[in-house]
Formats: sequence, C-alpha cells, structure tokens
Amino acid sequence: EFGLCYLILLIVVLRHIQDPASQRLTWNKPPVNVLVIRKIRDESLVEPFKELCHFLVEEKGMLVFVERRVVADVSLTTDETFASIRNQLCTFREGYDDISHCIDLIICLGGDGTLLYASSLFQGSVPPVMAFHLGSLGFLTPFKFESYKTEVAKVFEGNAAITLRSRLKVKVVKDMLQRTEHNGLLPHGHTNSEAGNITLQMQVLNEVVVDRGPSSYLSNVDLYLDGRLITSVQGDGVIVSTPTGSTAYAAAAGASMIHPNVPAIMVTPICPHSLSFRPIVVPAGVELMITLSPDARNTCWVSFDGRKRQEIRHGDCIKITTSCYPVPSICCHDLVYDWFESLAQCLHWNVRKKQARLADDVSGSSDTEN
Amino acid sequence: EFGLCYLILLIVVLRHIQDPASQRLTWNKPPVNVLVIRKIRDESLVEPFKELCHFLVEEKGMLVFVERRVVADVSLTTDETFASIRNQLCTFREGYDDISHCIDLIICLGGDGTLLYASSLFQGSVPPVMAFHLGSLGFLTPFKFESYKTEVAKVFEGNAAITLRSRLKVKVVKDMLQRTEHNGLLPHGHTNSEAGNITLQMQVLNEVVVDRGPSSYLSNVDLYLDGRLITSVQGDGVIVSTPTGSTAYAAAAGASMIHPNVPAIMVTPICPHSLSFRPIVVPAGVELMITLSPDARNTCWVSFDGRKRQEIRHGDCIKITTSCYPVPSICCHDLVYDWFESLAQCLHWNVRKKQARLADDVSGSSDTEN
Amino acid sequence: EFGLCYLILLIVVLRHIQDPASQRLTWNKPPVNVLVIRKIRDESLVEPFKELCHFLVEEKGMLVFVERRVVADVSLTTDETFASIRNQLCTFREGYDDISHCIDLIICLGGDGTLLYASSLFQGSVPPVMAFHLGSLGFLTPFKFESYKTEVAKVFEGNAAITLRSRLKVKVVKDMLQRTEHNGLLPHGHTNSEAGNITLQMQVLNEVVVDRGPSSYLSNVDLYLDGRLITSVQGDGVIVSTPTGSTAYAAAAGASMIHPNVPAIMVTPICPHSLSFRPIVVPAGVELMITLSPDARNTCWVSFDGRKRQEIRHGDCIKITTSCYPVPSICCHDLVYDWFESLAQCLHWNVRKKQARLADDVSGSSDTEN
Amino acid sequence: EFGLCYLILLIVVLRHIQDPASQRLTWNKPPVNVLVIRKIRDESLVEPFKELCHFLVEEKGMLVFVERRVVADVSLTTDETFASIRNQLCTFREGYDDISHCIDLIICLGGDGTLLYASSLFQGSVPPVMAFHLGSLGFLTPFKFESYKTEVAKVFEGNAAITLRSRLKVKVVKDMLQRTEHNGLLPHGHTNSEAGNITLQMQVLNEVVVDRGPSSYLSNVDLYLDGRLITSVQGDGVIVSTPTGSTAYAAAAGASMIHPNVPAIMVTPICPHSLSFRPIVVPAGVELMITLSPDARNTCWVSFDGRKRQEIRHGDCIKITTSCYPVPSICCHDLVYDWFESLAQCLHWNVRKKQARLADDVSGSSDTEN
Repeated sequence: EFGLCYLILLIVVLRHIQDPASQRLTWNKPPVNVLVIRKIRDESLVEPFKELCHFLVEEKGMLVFVERRVVADVSLTTDETFASIRNQLCTFREGYDDISHCIDLIICLGGDGTLLYASSLFQGSVPPVMAFHLGSLGFLTPFKFESYKTEVAKVFEGNAAITLRSRLKVKVVKDMLQRTEHNGLLPHGHTNSEAGNITLQMQVLNEVVVDRGPSSYLSNVDLYLDGRLITSVQGDGVIVSTPTGSTAYAAAAGASMIHPNVPAIMVTPICPHSLSFRPIVVPAGVELMITLSPDARNTCWVSFDGRKRQEIRHGDCIKITTSCYPVPSICCHDLVYDWFESLAQCLHWNVRKKQARLADDVSGSSDTEN
Repeated sequence: EFGLCYLILLIVVLRHIQDPASQRLTWNKPPVNVLVIRKIRDESLVEPFKELCHFLVEEKGMLVFVERRVVADVSLTTDETFASIRNQLCTFREGYDDISHCIDLIICLGGDGTLLYASSLFQGSVPPVMAFHLGSLGFLTPFKFESYKTEVAKVFEGNAAITLRSRLKVKVVKDMLQRTEHNGLLPHGHTNSEAGNITLQMQVLNEVVVDRGPSSYLSNVDLYLDGRLITSVQGDGVIVSTPTGSTAYAAAAGASMIHPNVPAIMVTPICPHSLSFRPIVVPAGVELMITLSPDARNTCWVSFDGRKRQEIRHGDCIKITTSCYPVPSICCHDLVYDWFESLAQCLHWNVRKKQARLADDVSGSSDTEN
Repeated sequence: EFGLCYLILLIVVLRHIQDPASQRLTWNKPPVNVLVIRKIRDESLVEPFKELCHFLVEEKGMLVFVERRVVADVSLTTDETFASIRNQLCTFREGYDDISHCIDLIICLGGDGTLLYASSLFQGSVPPVMAFHLGSLGFLTPFKFESYKTEVAKVFEGNAAITLRSRLKVKVVKDMLQRTEHNGLLPHGHTNSEAGNITLQMQVLNEVVVDRGPSSYLSNVDLYLDGRLITSVQGDGVIVSTPTGSTAYAAAAGASMIHPNVPAIMVTPICPHSLSFRPIVVPAGVELMITLSPDARNTCWVSFDGRKRQEIRHGDCIKITTSCYPVPSICCHDLVYDWFESLAQCLHWNVRKKQARLADDVSGSSDTEN
Repeated sequence: EFGLCYLILLIVVLRHIQDPASQRLTWNKPPVNVLVIRKIRDESLVEPFKELCHFLVEEKGMLVFVERRVVADVSLTTDETFASIRNQLCTFREGYDDISHCIDLIICLGGDGTLLYASSLFQGSVPPVMAFHLGSLGFLTPFKFESYKTEVAKVFEGNAAITLRSRLKVKVVKDMLQRTEHNGLLPHGHTNSEAGNITLQMQVLNEVVVDRGPSSYLSNVDLYLDGRLITSVQGDGVIVSTPTGSTAYAAAAGASMIHPNVPAIMVTPICPHSLSFRPIVVPAGVELMITLSPDARNTCWVSFDGRKRQEIRHGDCIKITTSCYPVPSICCHDLVYDWFESLAQCLHWNVRKKQARLADDVSGSSDTEN
C-alpha cells in the first residue's frame, strides 16, 4: 500500500482567498468625529462643502474637523448664513496639529487627489474614507454628491462594503554608504542600513516614482528584492505602485491593471531602454530597495504620490515595502462593480465601437471559407 | 476625548503577507514512490532517463513509476543493460490507471511541457515536483541535470524551498441555456448552472485560452465575474491565466509578469479590437465565466494548457476559478532567485546592451545643460 | 579655397515629399458607368440602395452596374415601384463577367468590407471609389448617406481630394523547392522562384495574414527582405500590411498607425514569443517573402484581406510587394481631416477624460514643489 | 463600348518607390578635406584617433579638420610622436568658425552621439559621414575600427552605399501670441506666425522631445498638422522623430521601428494618460506645430537631439517639418543589412530563445488534437 507522505501546504494558498463578505464596515460605537476634506482652489465645491457641513453638524450632530485654511477661505468667512456652522467646526493645521487618533470617518469632496491627501494625513491607521466626486467619477471617488444625504446616512448605519487599499511604506536613507566605498561595494540590505540617516518615511497610496528629473539623460537605477539585486533599470525611471496605483501613472507607463484586493506590489519601468522590460508584479510583503547604479552619471529624483520630490545621489537608497496601514475605502456598490465602473469611466477601458473586423462584412460569397 | 471607533480590518491584509520561510518541503515520512515523467520523442533524453532510473532504484531504493509507453520505447526494450531496472519499474497507462494517490514525488525530465503533463495527471492534490531541464532553463524546470544526484538527495532529505503554483479549476458546461432562450436571456451564474451538462472539468497550470479557432473572423465573448457581466472581448480571443501562465502565452499577448506567489487570476485579451483593452489582474477566488456574446456570428474555441481543444457554441459556458490543488514545485534556489533567473533566461527580460541614450555622449560642450 | 565635392542626393528625398494638392480627382470626360456595391444580408441598406439607384439612373442618367445576386434579392424583385429602375441596371456575376475595364466610378454602401470587396474586383487599375457609411463612420467609408445627392453631384463635377491607398501584390508559390531539398537549402529569391507553381496572385488593400490556423501550437515562419533572411517569427503569426491596413488588424496586434500617404509596408508580429519583437516599417517597393521555417513542426495558414484562406506547407512561399495599382479613395474632407476623424471615431484614438494626474489636485500646500 | 475616363495618379505612388541602387556615393572630384569627430572624455579613443589622423595625413594626404578642444587635450599635446601630425591639423571652434562649406567627408569615432554632433555642425547640406564604433555596434556607427584602413580607402574610391537620413527642421517661436490674447485665441498656423520671435532654428537627426521637465505634473500640449489642431497630448510628453529617431527614445516610448528610407515623421506620446493613444506616422513634408494647451497649468520643456533644453510657455510654439538637408550616412554593407543588424545588436530586436510554446512538448498523446 502506497502512502501519501508529502506535506500539503494548501492552507497557505487558501488563506489568500478572501471572503469578500468579511470586508464590510461595522461600527463598534456610533461615529462622532468626521474629518471633511475638500479640494481647495475650486469654487464649484464651496456650496457642496457648506451643505455637507450643515448636514453633518445640524442634522447628524457630528463634530466636524476641517483644515484651518479651508475655513479661512474668503468665500466662507464672508458668508453670514454659514457663520453659526463655521463656529462649530474644529480646525487644525497640517504639520502642527495631529488629529490622526481622533477621527472616526473621513469624507472627501473633489478629485482623487483629496484621497491621496487624506492618506498623507494618517501615517498610522486610517479611518474609513467616503469619497464624493462632483464632476466625473474618479478611481478613488465612487460616490455621487447628488444623493449625499442618503449615502452618508447609510454609512453611519454601518454595513457598507469596504475596499482595503494597501499602501506602501517608504523610507529614504541618505548616505547609507561611505563615499569612498560606493564604487566597490554594493549596499547590503540589512547590515548597513542603519548606518545611514532616514530622511523621510511615509505611506503612499498610489506609487513611488523614481525618474530622471530635469535631466535629458537616462536614469540608471538598481532594483533589489529582499536584499538581492534583481535588475537595473535604464530609462526615464521606474514606478513602484500599489494595486490602487496600477490604474494611475503606472497605467500610462504600460502596466496591467490590478484589482485593489490583490496583495501585490507592481514594478513598472518608464520608457525603458530595453524593449523586453515588461512590468512585473511581486507579492505584498517583499522589501524592495532602489539605489543609483554605481556607474550612473546623473542623479535621479523620487516622489511619493506626486509629492515631496527630492534628489537621490550615490549612496542614498529608497526602501519600499507593504504598509501595515491600508486605507479602508468605502464602496459605493461593491468591490467588483466599483472597480470595473471606474476602469470604464476613467480609463475608457475596452470602450469601443462594436465593429466587425473589416473582412466580416465583405460582400463576396465566392470566398473559400464561406 | 475623542474615541477611535472604526473597525480595523488589518488582519485581512496581514494574512496575505506570506512568510516565505513557511513554504518549505518537509516529509512526514520518507518518500518511497517516485513518478518519473519524460518528454517523449526526444532521443537526447534516453540516457539521462536510464541513469536517473538506475540511481533511484539501485542507489536510493525507490519504487519508480513510469508511463507504459515510455518503457515500451524501443530504445529501452532493446537495451539489455537496462533490463533489470526496467523490470523493477511500475508502469501505468494514462486514462486507465489512477496513480494519483500513491505518489510521493514527481521528477520531470525535459521542457516545461512535462510539468504541464504532470499537472494533468493529478486532478486532485499534487505531490511535490522536481523538474530538470536538459538544454536551456525553462520556466518550470529550474534544475540542471548535470548535478542530479546531489539535488535529488537534498530533496529526499527535505527542507527544500517550494513554490506553490496555483491552478485554475475549469468547467465547460454545454447547453446551459435552452436554445429558445439564449437570445433573450443571459446566463445567470448560480441558479441555472446546473441545468447544463458538464462536459469537461479539469485543472490547468498555465491558462485557459478562448480563441477564434480556424475562423478569419473576430471572436466575440462575454466575460462575467462573480455572476456579473463585466466586459465583452472582441478580437482574437482571451486568455485566463494563473501567475505561472503570465509568463507563457499571456506574456506574448502583452501581459505583465506576475510572480507565482501572488494570489491572483489574470485576464488578457488577444489582439483586442479596442486599443484601450489592457490586461487585468483580479483576486484569486473569484469565479469567472465566459460565453459567446449573444450577437456573435461565429463560434469560438477553448483549450486548456494547450490541450483538449473544443468548440464553444451559443448556450455553452466556461467557468473558471482558483483551484484548491496547487502544484508544489520544488525550487532550485528560492522563490525569488528562480523566478528572476527564468525571466532573464527564458524571456530575455530587460536584457540589453548597457548604452547611454544617444545624447549622452554628444561631444559638444556648448549645450545649455552641460 | 575648399571645394564642395560630394554628391548631394537631395532630389531623392525631395521627390518623396508629395504635394497633396496634386492628388485631386479630375475627369478626362464625364463619368458614365457607375458600379454600385452594397453589403448584402443587411436589410437596412435596401432603401438607401434603391434611392441611390433611382438617383443615378433617373436624375443623373448614369449606366449603373450591380452584382446579379444583389438585384436578385427578393426585397428588390418584389418591389413593383423599383421594377423600371431594376430593368435599367447592368448586372454581372463575380468570377464570370469582367467589368474591370468599363467602370468610371465605384460607389459603396455599407461598412469597410464593401471597399475591400471593390478592391478585389479590380486586380488591375481601380476607378475612384466613393464610400458611404450608413451607421457609424468607417476607416474607408467617410461619406454620410444623408447628403448623398450633394456629395455625388460634387464628385461628378470633379475636383475632389483623393487618397491613393497603396495595395500589396501577393503571390503564393507552391512547391517552390523540391521536397528532398527543403531541409538543406533555403529558398533563393530570384533564381528558383520560377520553379514553383503560382497558385494565387492578388492585390490586397489591408493585409496579408499568416497565422497558426486551427493549431494550438506556435507558428514558425521566416521573413526575407529582397532575398535575404532578416528574421524568424515565432508566435501566433505575422501581418504584412499597407498603411491602410495599419489601422485594421495590425492595430489590434500593437502596430503604430500609418497615414495612407506614407509609401511603406508594415510588418507586425502577432503575439510573438519574443518580448522584444516590435512591428517594423519598411519602404514601399521592397520584396518580402515568407516561408515556413525549416524546423517548423506545423504548417501555417495565410489569408488576404480576410479571404482565400489556405494552408502553407514546407516548400511553399508567399511573395509580397507594393502593387502598381492603388485604390483611389475619394475623401469627404481631405487627407488629413478624414484620417484623424476616422482614428477618433473608429479606434477612439486618444479619446479620454480630461483629467489631471492624481497628484495635481492634492490639497496639501506643505509640498516642496508647490 | 465603355470608356476609361478617370485619371490614374500612379505616378505619384510610383515615384515613392526608390531605386536603392541610385543611392550610392560618387565623388565629383577626389575628396580632400576630412573632418574627424571623436567622442571626448573617453581615453580609449586616444590611440585610434591618433592612428586615424596619421593615416589620413601621412598616407592619404588629406587635410584633416579637428575641433580645437580635441587637439588641446593633454593626451595629445604631451605626445611628442604625434606633434608633427598635430601641427598639420586644421582646428576650429564650435560656434566661432564655420567649416560647413569646406568639408568633403566626415569621419566619426565613438558612439551614436558623435553623429548627432556632426549633424549639429552642419545646419545646411551635410557631407557624407562615415562612422566607426569602437565597442559595440551603434545605430549610426556601422563600421568596425579594426579594418579602418581598408574601409576608408573604399570610401575614397567612391561607390559606397548611402542611407540618406532625413532630418527635421525645427523652429521655436516665442510670444507668437499676445499675452492678452492667448486665452481666447488659438494660434493660427500661417497668418500670425511672423508675429513672434524665432529664438531657435535647427536641424535634428533623431527627435524633438517635449516633456514635463522637472515638474511632477502632466504636460498638456496641443498638436497641429498643417495648421489644424489634430489632438491634445496629456502625459509625460511627446516625441516628434525621424525614422532614424524611431529606434532611439521613441522606441523606448513604444513606437514601431521605421527604416530610414521611409519618408515619414513619427509622433509618439510619452506615457499618455489615454490608454488608446498609439504612436502615429505621417508623411514627410507636413508641418507640425506644438503649443501648450490653453488650459495647461504648467509649462513644458523642449529639447533637440537631447540638447538645447528650454522652457515653452503659453504663447510660444514649436514648428517642425522635414528638412531639405538629410545626413548622407555611409553604409557598411547596405541599407537593408545595416539596419536589421543594428536592430538586433542595439535593441535585441526579436532576439529570443528558440522555444516551443509550453504545450508543444506535452508528453500526453491522448490529446484530441494530436
């Protein structure tokens, strides 16, 4: 009798297969503190913003948090009908006041950028985010403002579907290697990493972009995975993105589109010199590291969700891994519908005229294959 | 005092981040039964095959299983020096004898096709597979035959790294819809599915391909995800692949390359009529369904890992989801190294001449940016 | 005093730069014989067809040619009001009656296929073609039927802009090489070519497609340019197209779009095994030849503007060069407008939502680059 | 009897089909003045440069022109054995001394950049260029230095094949539109163009690149063809290139590769926001114009063969058309061989492991299609 003696590691695979039903918003206690974020410099948002604040404060009895400069806007300070609401708003200043531990719900008004901004305010865990578009649908802003009262009420009741959008944790380490060493010695992931100065640490929702900056010349960077050099990128640069970011800049650079629920990190070259350099998708949880190639003649530049742009020189390195703090983004319909709707609306994905290939309506019937 | 009252669903994300260290082969009891698969019709494999059998039977005392037609090959039957080994081999016939419950280890000799074949023999759980290439490295055949004794010995000792390659479970359901109904009524995922006849059910390791077959005309198929129509594909066809399959036919059709450890399913159109139809990556565990579009004027054809090619007509459907039975594929080095090595060797991924963009060595110094 | 002693060959370059103003239709004598082509099996075209015939015969006094089976359609034979017009139509049968020397103008009703069909009827020089779309704009059908009377009248007056769409002249030569030779000897362009039997010779307006046909396996073909092997194509196949064809199947396979006035031939691989195999564009006038690769294990199939599909075996070859007989296609507006309009309408070329990249509307002002 | 009464404009098409045999170098009188260009800052070129100068001056009796700073290099001034040759060299300074009318032949040593530099020195007609690579083959440097004596001698005898590489004539016009007008009024091609100040006019051999420069934000530019707005480009930028440039930066941005003999201009978007924005190829001789889009929030930057980088603001425009002055580039073998050799060597075009698709070597014979 033959025996079955190998170890089945199915559990590892099976636990990846999420039960989407489990990803729903439920409140431990009723939400009280709501942060409202609006795109600034957009006059069309003034009225919706006032309406929303009025609704939250007067009808729902919420404590509403708003950035100070938003409230200081002349369109609000000169509006006497808004004065009483305005006085009840809690204000804060970015970079001075830390509100990251006292918010139950974030509501965004405007484009996808408001959600990137919300993400930047919460470097640790992030409250659920409900995002409204006012013009056209955004990738990250599934709700129509027209029906905001009903939608907000539903969310307060709980039981909305949630997309947990993973973020990347990024560190920039300066002068990790001695200047005298960097020609002969490649950086070693773990041992030397503490030698440098961490100059920036942040969570990104879309992507880290490394590019040639103002230079006309190719950038040359080395890419490490879990401490091992896997390839060099020669071209305009490289994008390390979340699945959320796969439909942003990475899509323009030729990436496939990844559903936000796939636990993965995407690496996409920008205009690579090599014709065969396709984007790759690696498992969430790996540690990526990017440095200038030892023979690079120019520096490169890095930015984080389009911000904090800075130069990377020989000896510096950028470390990237999956963050423990995803952004719980409230769905308008559900995980599947919202995503495909945004692909169609924002990217015209597979939008086409229904047309037979030219041969299809050839008049001739003498054709051999007819 | 503000309270934190939203539910953190981090656990869902965190459990996606595998600890690669856990994916190692360990034997509950020493392996005894070894299935050896070799590519047929390749004379260069005769000697390595004999050597390997001799080693396994004589030196390691294994019970070796071989397909009957492999042993019946004239190059083996006429070799008297191999006769004693030959008599100790257990033979089976594909389609007649089920050996799927009595094998501890599979050893493949030849190209990637041998692993696809091994996968097809095990429709339930699959023993660990150790695959040797004889010419050039394959995606699925990381081991060099030159050092087979050492390598096999190491595997018998256990403690080798394993890549759990997910498979897709595919069903073809014929006549799911009444002929009289199919114009007015779209198939409904769950309720009607039992109405049809399941004519084929199998596990694929690379991909399911739906294409236009011998027709010159575009194929028109509808793609459903979890019972909902998400898009129509008009073109040469569509590929539904595993991460393992992302480097096979899907790569030729323009897909990004996905590491086998990412729990995902990839959908790649083949020469789509729409310029904006990019490949998409959805989470493992969703159920995909493909049917002819109601207005399709031609049928389409489906094949499974390149085999079992058959026609799909109006009323038929193909159901695809992640299988519970992955293929545990033994790594030569580890998950990361093996994959990037195969990208470089098999696809020339990012292989290039190191060259500055043309402007870089311009002689002129009057340039403004110099 | 230094002298200028090299030969300037500017004339060669300059004569490529067409004066678009010269490409206008002018009649030597008034047109009399008009061929009307309509897409068959499309009921929506019956009334427009009758209207057009009535207009041409009764109002313009033209002699109208129509395919016999079009006139034999029951929707025409049973319409008594059309009987008198019907009796004045000249009919012909494809493959029996040669009308290629007696037509002054072709008018097409229907999709792009009608123009491909018109092209196939004229293997030598082609009269000017005026093509109407009835539903949505096609690449080859720029005119709206709504204003057909005005438009046709303008064309009769002459002085319309014309796009000279180049065609490819294709020959299939069977058994060019002895069966015993084909392993050792590659075909030599000119010397042996007369040894085979030319089994087909035709002009194509869009493309010649070589593909794997019903096989699941890769096709392997060799591509020669002016008698010299330039590359092998391993994949689903290869497309050799005119600039007109660059927006048809070649676009689906990833080609750049070429304006019909560029004197060029495009070679586009279909799902090539090599990641670095990009489409190439070579000058009009070169001779391309395609054969099965000596080591190909399967045959391949060839089709011409989607028709005359046939198998290509070892020893056969396909010869392709620029035809001397382009299709003079009458523009609705002009060469530039018509082409960009068709790119936008038929391919949604660069159609997009005007949207800033996500970072653009980030609310935060602490950003270094603001 | 039916008459043929349409005008055949075949001549227009036929004259595009060059006779490659006509593109050969022939000398009116023996060449005397040779310009030698070498890549600076590359020590490995010092010896080859000295050797070449010695050969040209001593053995061939040529008058050799060299840039002054090349001769001023310390490696030459300190070499006494080279002193007598050095004294016979004619030197010039870029930007001060115009040698463009007194050179019979240009010889380049180094990478493709030397040819771009040579091109920049000759803004009018260009003498034939013979380019040597020292390391690996370049696109523009087909000759091996090893056999330079034989090769140069052959060229002096005349009768070498020549590729006439077309260039683009580019003008930057500043403040073409009144500052007060530019919001309401789009630029009009011809009428207003003289209102602005032409700040730069030059010939480029590869491409004009318009990009976002140091900004993180998308660039927004409008593209006009023959005075008509044809599309807007939203993304990292746009490349307008010659066929020669189609294998340089444009290839990295996804363009098809165009043989230098095709009379065409290529327009390639760089990471366009729209998924359906493919590169296009338009006929040589059209006039392209690029401006910032009226609603662009940021400026963009332009560079010419990687040089002369400058900012483009609202009201500025870039005008591009085919130059009357191509670069006659001497072939090592011929037009066809040299180009395909450089595709293979420089871009690894279609370089691949010869491998059957995975299914091809499946062991199983029970497959339906076997």
